[in-house]
Amino acid sequence: MIFKQLIDTETSTYTYLLADENSKEAIIIDPVVEQVERDTQLINELWLTLKYILDTHVHADHVTWSGELRKIFPEAQIAVWKENKLKCADILLQDKQELSFWEYKITTLETPGHTAWCVSYVSEDMVFTWDLLLIKAAGRTDFQSGSNEKMYQNIQERIYTLPDDTTIYPAHDYNGFTSSTVGQEKKNNPLINEATSLEDFSESMDNLDLAYPKKIDVSLPANKLCWE
Amino acid sequence: MIFKQLIDTETSTYTYLLADENSKEAIIIDPVVEQVERDTQLINELWLTLKYILDTHVHADHVTWSGELRKIFPEAQIAVWKENKLKCADILLQDKQELSFWEYKITTLETPGHTAWCVSYVSEDMVFTWDLLLIKAAGRTDFQSGSNEKMYQNIQERIYTLPDDTTIYPAHDYNGFTSSTVGQEKKNNPLINEATSLEDFSESMDNLDLAYPKKIDVSLPANKLCWE
Repeated sequence: MIFKQLIDTETSTYTYLLADENSKEAIIIDPVVEQVERDTQLINELWLTLKYILDTHVHADHVTWSGELRKIFPEAQIAVWKENKLKCADILLQDKQELSFWEYKITTLETPGHTAWCVSYVSEDMVFTWDLLLIKAAGRTDFQSGSNEKMYQNIQERIYTLPDDTTIYPAHDYNGFTSSTVGQEKKNNPLINEATSLEDFSESMDNLDLAYPKKIDVSLPANKLCWE
Repeated sequence: MIFKQLIDTETSTYTYLLADENSKEAIIIDPVVEQVERDTQLINELWLTLKYILDTHVHADHVTWSGELRKIFPEAQIAVWKENKLKCADILLQDKQELSFWEYKITTLETPGHTAWCVSYVSEDMVFTWDLLLIKAAGRTDFQSGSNEKMYQNIQERIYTLPDDTTIYPAHDYNGFTSSTVGQEKKNNPLINEATSLEDFSESMDNLDLAYPKKIDVSLPANKLCWE
């Protein structure tokens, strides 16, 4: 498999490009609008045929360029979680839905928590955990109908039940980590591990005392319109 | 193999941690002083035994923490290119020297160009090209006895002769790329590909018009003392 992890350094957002090395069929997860030129060039340089553009959720911290990207690669389909109802979506995803890119497939895992509607993706021995489970951290739950309860439950029941050597690729990292594994997070994620119960986890999450997301007032309406 | 790519976002410097998953013997390449706490914690969390601390060259843009790291992990040995003669070095490396970490080995490739004395490392299907070959770019050659001629020659003769699917991990990237491959750089690196001759390459390099490195006056003396 061709695999590329890409960084938007301004927002510390990771974008992922996965492709079958023979057929060149490709998918991209969570593209960022400021990187349209870089990512288009990369897709073209690798001679890839972009088949699916996947967004994990309606982002508050950066603007997706899924709509823009489909204009450049009109054969690509935009797939999002069924309840996100983005104007530009071609496919509304269900839980455990499989999308194939030639020899490979990527499977959805319904994992709300950071927001009310959102999805992780599993492909081969990798899981893309978006803002649900970050490296030694978890996404915030204090806006867009986030839920501490659902986050705790989904991390425990849907992510931590994957094999320990599954590589975790998050949507962001603010400490210079690029990946983790399920086994490592089970041992070393303080937010989850130090919580003795859901109530305890919930209290830690409520006390994170985070700043208002810088780009939320621009990003949310723009993303709902798919930047069109 | 356990493999971690780590980022120092202030200087866009990559550090690499490689370890044998069974014995836990590990090596670290190009650690950055500001990240001492993060990297020490990671090494401990993964229960690794740090065997070698490798620096690719005397860095001008960030301060290594090899000396500091050996204080924390006193069994680790600092290995550098033989002519760097760092005060804290335990091993002075020759060309094609192999260092083993249990089942795995890492091999040196003498590849001056960015500076006069420096080394790339090859392990499994990965090459760590430091500031010699960057993704769609190359390191600057305008200080520390850099040489356009040696850079051009070493990229062509020592890096481009590796198998095309060898993954390239550079010391830096300023555009959000985390890796490339030998095959991709052969096709897509404009500095090398668009040069019709060494003279042509040399002219492009001389016209890069780069700013004076921000941290060079602190980093060079500090790194020569191994931050001790």
